[in-house]
Amino acid sequence: MRPVITLLTDFGYDSYFVPSMKGVILSLNPEAVIIDITHSIPQFNVHKAAFTLWASYKYFPKGTIHVVVVDPGVGTSRRAIAIKTRNYYFVGPDNGVLMMAAEDDGIIDIRAIENRDFMRPVVSSTFHGRDIFAPVAAYLSLGLDITLLGSRVTDPARLPGITNRVSRNIANSMIIYIDHFGNAYTGIRESDLGVLGLKYGDELRIVIPRRNTDLRVRFLRSYGYAGDGEVLALINSEGFLELSINRDNFAQKYGVVEGDEVTLFVIK
Amino acid sequence: MRPVITLLTDFGYDSYFVPSMKGVILSLNPEAVIIDITHSIPQFNVHKAAFTLWASYKYFPKGTIHVVVVDPGVGTSRRAIAIKTRNYYFVGPDNGVLMMAAEDDGIIDIRAIENRDFMRPVVSSTFHGRDIFAPVAAYLSLGLDITLLGSRVTDPARLPGITNRVSRNIANSMIIYIDHFGNAYTGIRESDLGVLGLKYGDELRIVIPRRNTDLRVRFLRSYGYAGDGEVLALINSEGFLELSINRDNFAQKYGVVEGDEVTLFVIK
Amino acid sequence: MRPVITLLTDFGYDSYFVPSMKGVILSLNPEAVIIDITHSIPQFNVHKAAFTLWASYKYFPKGTIHVVVVDPGVGTSRRAIAIKTRNYYFVGPDNGVLMMAAEDDGIIDIRAIENRDFMRPVVSSTFHGRDIFAPVAAYLSLGLDITLLGSRVTDPARLPGITNRVSRNIANSMIIYIDHFGNAYTGIRESDLGVLGLKYGDELRIVIPRRNTDLRVRFLRSYGYAGDGEVLALINSEGFLELSINRDNFAQKYGVVEGDEVTLFVIK
Repeated sequence: MRPVITLLTDFGYDSYFVPSMKGVILSLNPEAVIIDITHSIPQFNVHKAAFTLWASYKYFPKGTIHVVVVDPGVGTSRRAIAIKTRNYYFVGPDNGVLMMAAEDDGIIDIRAIENRDFMRPVVSSTFHGRDIFAPVAAYLSLGLDITLLGSRVTDPARLPGITNRVSRNIANSMIIYIDHFGNAYTGIRESDLGVLGLKYGDELRIVIPRRNTDLRVRFLRSYGYAGDGEVLALINSEGFLELSINRDNFAQKYGVVEGDEVTLFVIK
Repeated sequence: MRPVITLLTDFGYDSYFVPSMKGVILSLNPEAVIIDITHSIPQFNVHKAAFTLWASYKYFPKGTIHVVVVDPGVGTSRRAIAIKTRNYYFVGPDNGVLMMAAEDDGIIDIRAIENRDFMRPVVSSTFHGRDIFAPVAAYLSLGLDITLLGSRVTDPARLPGITNRVSRNIANSMIIYIDHFGNAYTGIRESDLGVLGLKYGDELRIVIPRRNTDLRVRFLRSYGYAGDGEVLALINSEGFLELSINRDNFAQKYGVVEGDEVTLFVIK
Repeated sequence: MRPVITLLTDFGYDSYFVPSMKGVILSLNPEAVIIDITHSIPQFNVHKAAFTLWASYKYFPKGTIHVVVVDPGVGTSRRAIAIKTRNYYFVGPDNGVLMMAAEDDGIIDIRAIENRDFMRPVVSSTFHGRDIFAPVAAYLSLGLDITLLGSRVTDPARLPGITNRVSRNIANSMIIYIDHFGNAYTGIRESDLGVLGLKYGDELRIVIPRRNTDLRVRFLRSYGYAGDGEVLALINSEGFLELSINRDNFAQKYGVVEGDEVTLFVIK
């Protein structure tokens, strides 16, 4: 089976950064299948990159090597790491971007990337994607034992997790992700619905204090059950309670951004 | 030969939607070659998706499976369908988006996708691209007989076709597609030129009533024969009469959008 | 080993142009691995395309076929060419876009693409990417001898090169490339630092006359050594002296564009 390597960066689609990484990979392992997660992460937005990786990594074949380069600290003393989990490998900077996905899958080993045998001969100060992460991924796809990369890491950087307070009829959470369509994902999960007491057909009052937004919306199964232009809430494909407008852009219309606090009240 | 699966969506390049579909496909068929048609279809613009599919599907190897997910009705009662044509398979929602291409190639069988054996174990209400269309495409690439997907569909949804009125020296049509460069494709085809009496070197008067646009342009063989900034008409690579500005953006400059009516007068 | 074909165009990611080229290639050579360099070159910007190709071509496996379609003269009498270099093939219009990379690798032979046996049966006037360049690349990937394409070209079009004047403590150059993050690459190379007398830790005075920009910045090893929002200069991954703002967009903030003249003064 041809090994799969995925790439997730903030490099955009308009420059030579991503194809240079792909060239390096294919030069080392011509059998690698390279798949783009996305290269449109807003510059240095490690939270968005972490969520995007988490939402997609698990659908790839076992053994897939996931490379993330969202790396404001490139060229400084921040470590480069590779992580072996139950089913995958993750490669990237030690800034927390890999951990949401890696911990979800179950971490087996984390190594600092120190062994220059698995880097390009000359390592630039500003493009570790090409000079370190791409060749490491290629070598892992060729069967490299992760322990050969460097010393064990026991204190990887982590991003703050999602914090909610959920009780009967009221939940405090935040907007954790805004997708391509402007749908705003709260941190409330499908598994919180029981405690919250929320059922399909209920109404929700949605308060977003930073925006002075106060809405009453229906909790429905999918977009198409709402009227055109109607705000709704639903459980989305990742299992989060999502705020949406049928055939329109919720985040844009209400000026909501990732990190905004949101309070939900169930109205029977 | 490795089977080719193409993807055409309005999911954008910035989120986890498209790579999740690719992961699902590669997990089921690691030999599949996945090619992006585009993921930049404007949200829910089934007409643009239908034209884009039609303009590109036919260049792919026989047996290619074309998946389209431009699907405002996801999660409602709209059907999911798979179509076997003379040379290809098409998979997507039953909203007409597949039909321009499928009918062009010659439809052999249309099936409703009903058999849950060929879907992901849990099907979300909002992401059928990942949970239904991607696995169905992967199974077709493995040789699945389309008749096993579900019952025959005899009444697929269709989009309105292109309607022109063409006579000697005058044609009424509409703008059917605007491309990346702002070139505006009318519905007039190369095969209409005889009736219209239009020859290279002729002048055309172009009237777009909604924009109060009234232009005199030359009918030329390619952009480079016009002066810089000159509006011209030509027969483009898809066989349509196209309105263009050499080295500029016609649609943007004149505020023209898909669906605008246009009348052409031949001036000898 | 599966042959690699790269594509670099100004066709964007939103239309049927690029996938049509990929379909043509896969129909002729199903084993080809197709990699996108980028399709976001600004329309007709052959300089940006030439630099982007130069910056990425060399990381690909030997034998890779690099196809560039940034081609304002499509359909006119401009030639189509294929170039064999020491390690690669290059295919595209004869407008200079291929030459920076091809000359860097070492040109062995340049041929005009004239033999219609290696084009699509019908060649449109406006889409040579699909009808000429894609099939030629596919045939080269199948082992076609480049001499069969057409007559030898001894006078390929060239773009003007980078011109600098570098002396002790002062350098005149220009902005040759602006990347995805708004970093502005000057034409000054790492190999010029000795003559210029510039060392890490020195200060530079940067003058961009067109913008009335006059800045004092530090010359550092990487972005992360500057404060947030601090303008800095560094030697980037391609070996050029680059002007940047740590965690911000230099080109946007200072209104700098490719082609702007810049003068650097070393301040000890």
